Amino acid sequence: MSTEPPYLGISRRKLEERDSKIPAEWRISMPEDDDNLLGLPRSCSLLSQRELDITEQNDSVALLEKIRAREYSSVEVTRAFCKRAAIAQQVLNCLTEIFFDQALERAAYLDDYLNRIGKPLGPLHGLPVALKDSINVAGIDSTIGMAAFAFKPVKKNSVIVDMLLSLGAVMYVKTNVPQSMMTPDTENFVFGQSRNARSKYLTAAGSSGGLGALLGIRGALMGIGTDVGGSVRIPAYCNGVYAVKPSSGRLPYHRLQGYLTDGAETVGILCVNGVLAVSMRDCELLLRSISDAEPWLYDPGCSYLPWDSQPLLERPLVFGVIWEDHETTPLPPLLRILRETCDKLRTNGHEVIDMEFYKCAELAQNAVGNFKLEGGKALDGARSLTGEPYTESVKQGGLYPCPEGTLSDLFALSAQRLQLQTDWLQYWASTAKSSRSGRPVDVILSPAQSCLPRPHDTLIRSHFSRIWNVLDYPAAIVQCGAVDLSKDNVELPPPRGPMDERVQSIYTKEKRQRYEGFPIGLQMVGQRQMEAKLVKVALLVEKLVR
Amino acid sequence: MSTEPPYLGISRRKLEERDSKIPAEWRISMPEDDDNLLGLPRSCSLLSQRELDITEQNDSVALLEKIRAREYSSVEVTRAFCKRAAIAQQVLNCLTEIFFDQALERAAYLDDYLNRIGKPLGPLHGLPVALKDSINVAGIDSTIGMAAFAFKPVKKNSVIVDMLLSLGAVMYVKTNVPQSMMTPDTENFVFGQSRNARSKYLTAAGSSGGLGALLGIRGALMGIGTDVGGSVRIPAYCNGVYAVKPSSGRLPYHRLQGYLTDGAETVGILCVNGVLAVSMRDCELLLRSISDAEPWLYDPGCSYLPWDSQPLLERPLVFGVIWEDHETTPLPPLLRILRETCDKLRTNGHEVIDMEFYKCAELAQNAVGNFKLEGGKALDGARSLTGEPYTESVKQGGLYPCPEGTLSDLFALSAQRLQLQTDWLQYWASTAKSSRSGRPVDVILSPAQSCLPRPHDTLIRSHFSRIWNVLDYPAAIVQCGAVDLSKDNVELPPPRGPMDERVQSIYTKEKRQRYEGFPIGLQMVGQRQMEAKLVKVALLVEKLVR
Repeated sequence: MSTEPPYLGISRRKLEERDSKIPAEWRISMPEDDDNLLGLPRSCSLLSQRELDITEQNDSVALLEKIRAREYSSVEVTRAFCKRAAIAQQVLNCLTEIFFDQALERAAYLDDYLNRIGKPLGPLHGLPVALKDSINVAGIDSTIGMAAFAFKPVKKNSVIVDMLLSLGAVMYVKTNVPQSMMTPDTENFVFGQSRNARSKYLTAAGSSGGLGALLGIRGALMGIGTDVGGSVRIPAYCNGVYAVKPSSGRLPYHRLQGYLTDGAETVGILCVNGVLAVSMRDCELLLRSISDAEPWLYDPGCSYLPWDSQPLLERPLVFGVIWEDHETTPLPPLLRILRETCDKLRTNGHEVIDMEFYKCAELAQNAVGNFKLEGGKALDGARSLTGEPYTESVKQGGLYPCPEGTLSDLFALSAQRLQLQTDWLQYWASTAKSSRSGRPVDVILSPAQSCLPRPHDTLIRSHFSRIWNVLDYPAAIVQCGAVDLSKDNVELPPPRGPMDERVQSIYTKEKRQRYEGFPIGLQMVGQRQMEAKLVKVALLVEKLVR
Repeated sequence: MSTEPPYLGISRRKLEERDSKIPAEWRISMPEDDDNLLGLPRSCSLLSQRELDITEQNDSVALLEKIRAREYSSVEVTRAFCKRAAIAQQVLNCLTEIFFDQALERAAYLDDYLNRIGKPLGPLHGLPVALKDSINVAGIDSTIGMAAFAFKPVKKNSVIVDMLLSLGAVMYVKTNVPQSMMTPDTENFVFGQSRNARSKYLTAAGSSGGLGALLGIRGALMGIGTDVGGSVRIPAYCNGVYAVKPSSGRLPYHRLQGYLTDGAETVGILCVNGVLAVSMRDCELLLRSISDAEPWLYDPGCSYLPWDSQPLLERPLVFGVIWEDHETTPLPPLLRILRETCDKLRTNGHEVIDMEFYKCAELAQNAVGNFKLEGGKALDGARSLTGEPYTESVKQGGLYPCPEGTLSDLFALSAQRLQLQTDWLQYWASTAKSSRSGRPVDVILSPAQSCLPRPHDTLIRSHFSRIWNVLDYPAAIVQCGAVDLSKDNVELPPPRGPMDERVQSIYTKEKRQRYEGFPIGLQMVGQRQMEAKLVKVALLVEKLVR
């Protein structure tokens, strides 16, 4: 007689609990043949026209203006996004925790506050902000897809949640993550797999994948995720939204739930909180609002980084372009959109110079070494408590199982990283020699990945993301175009190797139709801690390409 | 037949090499009975009146003004300090490397530059800056008191040396350190023991002890040392000068010579470069000049911290006072001067409130855990190459020998440190409840130590220094008074325990005469990375107590 491993029962109870939080009147039936689900919130007729307008016609900046002008109440905004998130959950399986009641209570408090006091509680007054599951909200689980962590409500908010609340935001959902949070496929044995709204056959990516899917379908306009190797940027890219992964020390990261032994999160390559949003100015709003609220007074990991202390942009701007990594060549639509963006920048008087992906292989190797250091001890410990296996994506990722590293390993990796960071400072400075204006590049422009959104559980590695975590540089995803097969239906060059073959395998003549119209974000990278400058440049690029 | 261990011969050759760099005409005879050596540079008649004026009548700010105004040439300034440093070396044994020739050549270049270009090369144009031996100057040894490292000239400047040169400074000497650089007694088996100019029976302290002694006798007006537990502040205190130990990320620290396995310096409690100077405005000059030169472009460990981005001071300022640590009570002159300083601050309208030395014992324990992590592997490895024993001070310090820690130890220590840092942020904020103005304290004022400068090799621990390294808070030493036995010849309270007995043992009725007139610096501590604010407040305090 076989005994069921405990995680299965925990998962069933957890899903039941989650699903019970969706009111009966907000239930929809899953369309059977619909591949592209983006139109569903509209076609399912659950949202009123006003709710469709609230969720589709605004970014956060516009929405907040209307709340402040009392054109929208906070309650109706919150209800609209709760409804839309409920729809998103039912078709994309993107949520882990649902707390609409609390959110509506909070929204009512904010409406009352605005009426009584006559001014908003803070710059995010009334804004629903979605959270990655690893971000703690007191009284609510941070399961992060691991049965052993379910039904253990945390006691304290993450620092960033405390700050968001003090700025006036409304919390209403937490979103799904991959087992281990170290793969780009959002699937685990508690909540299952999240889907991409543009095609249920494609991954929502990860590790902030539930969040990316939710924003992609506008079940949220803004979300906070985490990024130690691309976990904010890859989902933003795959779901067609914007993101900024700052340097460490910009956004508070203290008191999150992680997969690592306590204390390991402070060592080596630092994971950071980042923002996903439907516009770049929304990303700026979040970063500026938190910075202005002096996070360094609440989180010892935050640096003294006033938002407005960064230098004004000089003209012409100098853009450095990285076209490919050492293993793969980005697919034709990506390179075409990157080329067109460069052309527009040049036309507008800016300089665009080519850069190499300097020391890419060493940086990638350093990242993997750091990721393996803790040895998956906490992950395996938690798995063993409930008999949970590895997911397919974790197996493919190749990080686990691995032996725990030693202090000497850490020293060696840290020394190597310091050297690579030094090399990159010098390389960045050296770009001044290639620019007509004699100034080094202001930001680097590159594809966000080499491939388009992948089918579920197909590991296709490219190095455009994690390199910048090793260097601790801020990086943004900016929407710059869309797949257009009238231009992008071209022959592929001979593959450069096995990983390039995998990239090309999703863009065969037969498969590429699937991507017609897919939004394509490019990545922009700034120097360490220069988020304010990076965002200014990104806003300018966004304006030019629009 | 006994064979001599190799370090002895290396030491003899190294001392011979060093001493040969002092020109014969700058040799003096060591006074036999002179305990207080401060007057020697004057009484030995080696310096001209003009050279005495240059070295005694100016701080760095004043000196630089006169060089810019061509009142002094850079060459004559450099020669004056070379001479005075040569005298200091002969009586205090404070130097390790002497490169007067290079310095004079550089000074001549600077004079020529000023003549040709008509403006100074940088804000430190012509300023001789002394260096701790661990700071690398290309072509010169960084022996750090360890025979195994002698006669191995380093290839590259430390980043801070590159920056000092680009700002116009002149390098001319490196200064002595303790074996291991983890004790406050500057003695090692290559260079021997450095002495305190106020009494040869007293320690010059450490680990930047040679530097402290050199500044105490004005063989330099400014020096760069390092501080991971008090190594800049304790020598400044014991030699009667000023200092600022910044938070990590303020001054570039990359490419120094250390006693740790490569990479270990980037992990746990971070050692930082700090400044010793003869005035607080000199400390500000150094910190501002480096910050303005954007060290984050040259050193990946530096944060984006523009000097002028910190808020203006509000009035009244709120000072928090810490009177004692959990083991010891500061000696009567220290408490008296602290009381008088508080009175002056109150008289001038500022608020002064008492603080506890919050979590002092836990912080101290965390520091020791971090210091032992690397296990002295590199130190013992280097010692074994030349048969070097531990010094008496290292033995007393109790850090070595120790087993190497594990990655799990590091995680646990880091988790504890993060919690302590969080606790302190909250404690600091909570001081607002005790202040009339409702604002939290601006800076903390405390003794620099519990004791007065100690006799050589007598371990007397107090916790006023290293706690701030665990928290990564900036801390300054500000001269606030002097021992005055007409006020300070009071009964000691009953000792609180063994360490307090040791503190009191140096201030018995018989011994206290020795300290009459000794300058007493107090410590001021700011919040993390708020060096600019700390220095502004320190300048104000310095002005009030003068």
